[in-house]
Amino acid sequence: MKNDLLLLDGDAVAGKMKEQLAERVKQLAVKGVVPCLATILVGDDPSSATYVRMKGNACRRLGIQSIRVELPAHTTTEQLIGEIQKLNDDPAVHGILLQHPVPHHIDERAAFEAIRINKDVDGVTTLGFAQNAFGFADFPSCTPAAIMAILDHYQISIEGKHAVVIGRSPILGKPVSAMLLNRNATVTTCHSKTENLMDMVQLGDIVVAAVGKPKFVQGDWIKPGAVVLDAGYNKGNIGDVDYEECLRNAGAITPVPGSVGPVTIATLLKHTVDAAEKTAALSSHS
Amino acid sequence: MKNDLLLLDGDAVAGKMKEQLAERVKQLAVKGVVPCLATILVGDDPSSATYVRMKGNACRRLGIQSIRVELPAHTTTEQLIGEIQKLNDDPAVHGILLQHPVPHHIDERAAFEAIRINKDVDGVTTLGFAQNAFGFADFPSCTPAAIMAILDHYQISIEGKHAVVIGRSPILGKPVSAMLLNRNATVTTCHSKTENLMDMVQLGDIVVAAVGKPKFVQGDWIKPGAVVLDAGYNKGNIGDVDYEECLRNAGAITPVPGSVGPVTIATLLKHTVDAAEKTAALSSHS
Repeated sequence: MKNDLLLLDGDAVAGKMKEQLAERVKQLAVKGVVPCLATILVGDDPSSATYVRMKGNACRRLGIQSIRVELPAHTTTEQLIGEIQKLNDDPAVHGILLQHPVPHHIDERAAFEAIRINKDVDGVTTLGFAQNAFGFADFPSCTPAAIMAILDHYQISIEGKHAVVIGRSPILGKPVSAMLLNRNATVTTCHSKTENLMDMVQLGDIVVAAVGKPKFVQGDWIKPGAVVLDAGYNKGNIGDVDYEECLRNAGAITPVPGSVGPVTIATLLKHTVDAAEKTAALSSHS
Repeated sequence: MKNDLLLLDGDAVAGKMKEQLAERVKQLAVKGVVPCLATILVGDDPSSATYVRMKGNACRRLGIQSIRVELPAHTTTEQLIGEIQKLNDDPAVHGILLQHPVPHHIDERAAFEAIRINKDVDGVTTLGFAQNAFGFADFPSCTPAAIMAILDHYQISIEGKHAVVIGRSPILGKPVSAMLLNRNATVTTCHSKTENLMDMVQLGDIVVAAVGKPKFVQGDWIKPGAVVLDAGYNKGNIGDVDYEECLRNAGAITPVPGSVGPVTIATLLKHTVDAAEKTAALSSHS
């Protein structure tokens, strides 16, 4: 059974989120608080530089301060952790984002762990991951949270549905599986070792593609009427889903561009404002 | 296709683990180290008291010291956390187990969180959960680790298989789903809100029952040849699986008793010895 197609417009969801944030930033300004996101870029990967710039621009447009820390490619793990600790200790900084991937010689996990939990607005620490899996995280990873925001914006019911997640990375596949589970979906997590991947995906009422391979999910993998969320962002603005082919069966789908990406950035901004509000609330009580 | 039936004998797995542990305890004794597990029991629930006693007895038989902290039912969260902190600070204590459930007025999560990660041999902290989900925990929750130990003992292949977990508790369904995923199974996590549960379970090459309802999993839910692991332990020594009925289809199955329970206790002992060895290694370097 094929329903009418619903386009899940990430730009629209992000736009609405930013409207609400602009209001909250104004309220904070009255109290003399300017939300501040510190981004750290190590090395000179052009895509990473672009992402960091996009995030900085998005901050500025909303009146959120952004601090850019740029470190050379030969930075050591210890030096990087030292920079993170400075930001942890800086009361003007509300959120810290370490752009990944970092150069191979750096222990990325150790660097992520150095981010203090109340500034981990990108949701990359192990503690933040577990809090999210248990349902009480302040800052779930941004892309998984963005996927949930899109589902909620379009009032797509999750409870009892079978969600199939393709991918199991610590910042995407695993946390989005956990969030869908906590919202009472039955969740299947698939990955590169999954046998009969097509058969698995065909079971999904909700399909999340988080695999990092362009046009990986084929049209005939999609059960008629299924909701398809494409979290992939590959070179040339191509998603993980073969969008044109998947249109035929999907009941709802995110286009690329205008997919999960803009909502991910809006979520990062939201977490930064959340963190700033918490700080403001704490200092007004002290 | 129904293969010959393999009985997954938890007592045999636990026996082999304990043999190896006895040897390690002897080696530690040479260095003057006696592994020590502290158990905390709050209130007078008779089942909990039995579990704690069983764990203490199992320790003693292996030459592991056990300290029993028994607190009255009216203990506050703060008092309980105070007791945990004393054990955290006691260098003679290598592992801490807080028997759950605790009385309702206590914030169980806060109490679990108070256990220092290097003594969290029962794998109950959020940090320990996430380390396990990311594949680098020292002490995964004991029952999930026991399930993996049984699969490994019988050399049951996990990679690429479809594992269906029924249950999503923080100490069982969620961590065992994570461990199976990290071993390259495709994992579906089901629960009380799952629609068409029977259809889901019938997809499983490996089925883990962790739902806490006696004889919940029916014989005709099991795909012929599937591996069935029953982590349930209900009143009257009854598992979550209708064992007699599931025998017909299962390729391998855990009986109750002699199921996952004894391996869970052996895993707790193993974690305590692991922790003691780490302490011994650290002190010999200092």
